[in-house]
Amino acid sequence: MSLRIVFLGTAAGVPSPERSLPAILVQLEREQLMFDCGEGAQRQMLRARCGFNKKMKVFITHMHGDHVLGLPGLLQTMALLNRERKLDVYGPPRITDFMEAVRETVPFGLTFPVEIHQVEEPGVIVDEQGFRVEAILSKHPLPSFSYAFVEKPRPGKFHPEKAKAMGIKEGPLWGRLQRGQSVKLSSGRVVRPEEVMDKPREGRKIVYTGDTRPFRALEKFASGADVLIHDSTLGEELADRAMEYGHSTPRQAAETAKKAKVKTLILTHISQRYKDPNKVLKQAKKIFKNTIVAEDFMKLDVPVLE
Amino acid sequence: MSLRIVFLGTAAGVPSPERSLPAILVQLEREQLMFDCGEGAQRQMLRARCGFNKKMKVFITHMHGDHVLGLPGLLQTMALLNRERKLDVYGPPRITDFMEAVRETVPFGLTFPVEIHQVEEPGVIVDEQGFRVEAILSKHPLPSFSYAFVEKPRPGKFHPEKAKAMGIKEGPLWGRLQRGQSVKLSSGRVVRPEEVMDKPREGRKIVYTGDTRPFRALEKFASGADVLIHDSTLGEELADRAMEYGHSTPRQAAETAKKAKVKTLILTHISQRYKDPNKVLKQAKKIFKNTIVAEDFMKLDVPVLE
Repeated sequence: MSLRIVFLGTAAGVPSPERSLPAILVQLEREQLMFDCGEGAQRQMLRARCGFNKKMKVFITHMHGDHVLGLPGLLQTMALLNRERKLDVYGPPRITDFMEAVRETVPFGLTFPVEIHQVEEPGVIVDEQGFRVEAILSKHPLPSFSYAFVEKPRPGKFHPEKAKAMGIKEGPLWGRLQRGQSVKLSSGRVVRPEEVMDKPREGRKIVYTGDTRPFRALEKFASGADVLIHDSTLGEELADRAMEYGHSTPRQAAETAKKAKVKTLILTHISQRYKDPNKVLKQAKKIFKNTIVAEDFMKLDVPVLE
Repeated sequence: MSLRIVFLGTAAGVPSPERSLPAILVQLEREQLMFDCGEGAQRQMLRARCGFNKKMKVFITHMHGDHVLGLPGLLQTMALLNRERKLDVYGPPRITDFMEAVRETVPFGLTFPVEIHQVEEPGVIVDEQGFRVEAILSKHPLPSFSYAFVEKPRPGKFHPEKAKAMGIKEGPLWGRLQRGQSVKLSSGRVVRPEEVMDKPREGRKIVYTGDTRPFRALEKFASGADVLIHDSTLGEELADRAMEYGHSTPRQAAETAKKAKVKTLILTHISQRYKDPNKVLKQAKKIFKNTIVAEDFMKLDVPVLE
């Protein structure tokens, strides 16, 4: 199953000619998940040819403008393009008030249902057939979440030749074995799925911190992630300021990546003062080698481990 | 005095890779005036290097999202860049509710005063030393204004040699003549300003229609304008639809330009369906030759007529 991350906006609070405000799209085979929706997200989607009519969920980390002000415009554009599918929006408590207030004062018709889910408690907030999305409270001056996309384990490879050798012909019994159920043959013998199938394939995991200073619980939350997308607003030389405003430095992000044993660390929410991403990258690489500084329109395919 | 128009966004309701949502900047010598502030305006300003700390007024034509949703983000960025000067915002009645609602749900500190002026009645809404801004109700499905920037006439050129020949030495009397007052010499003779000065130089005029279908009063409102920036959302083939949604076609814009005897017509608010601006341009040029289709980042200097 393909799993791709498209970075639509990688700036911190102030955009730059190179970086739009925060928005990250995780593209699954039949759905896309957007994490944060800063101003300009809709035009970045257009430029990256992401499509406005797909099944889609939006997750807002917190109610600072640079993370949420692109949402009304995205909805308006979807409506002007005659979207019909429901759109689900998840976010902190004020998200409903915000959307209602905007819709009362900036009138636009919607051609599709929008369901807003206020995330009141950390935990599993979406549980679908192939994946779930979990939330944890991050450390920022106002209620803010980090989100994890967790793919569910998928059944191991099925070996038809092994089934046939046991006298099980192609048919309903194959399906039951593939769904993880044991089957009883007419001989009375019970065949367990693992006799004809490889071990389940582990699901992939992507964690997006949103804005946060480092905190211990994040290490467990991001544990073993294929990709950790981490706040990296300010460099080490401004570590005090980062702490004060609830942000992280590249070094802090790298330390969390190392402790959480993630595969790849991606730094984002980069202050406009860093024109050269190498400065940011160097600080992190000293601690965690497999680090990338996000750029707008960067695409990353998360590979399946067989 | 320099007078420059910078087109920051020239799209209709849906942006395109080439066109951002509506925003037009009129740059005076010591101030800039923004007309409409669609999503993305702040990043377009950044790209066009317009500066966030200048004396500035924003005029919103109406409360459709594509004309106003860039305003909260612009304010937030100005605050993050520590603007201190007051910002004046003019717009239709719901503008105050909108800004309050956003600020209540999307918290950000302002480092500068914002004064919101609700335009309740058409007429002169700004009257400054060198110019005024007038508003007229346009024809759109919700309350919407067209705006005119009108430069005040400036005194004609002063000729020191003529003054000296009449025995008036450099000093306070020169100042009085330059300000348009007659002066009485010790000989008893009265010198009128026109004896030592050329005729007053006419001020320049820029009219921006915002969204509108054609209407008669616009011809007078735009009369003699140096530049008429006109809604041109849909082509002639969709004239019925344009009428229904309160928009204009290139032909209609050109007819108004012709009747109003403007110098230059600029078509904007171009639907994303027109990838080739020449199609739009041709329809207008049949009627009004001096027509330009706006493009993002296009700059136009409005010349002084001597």
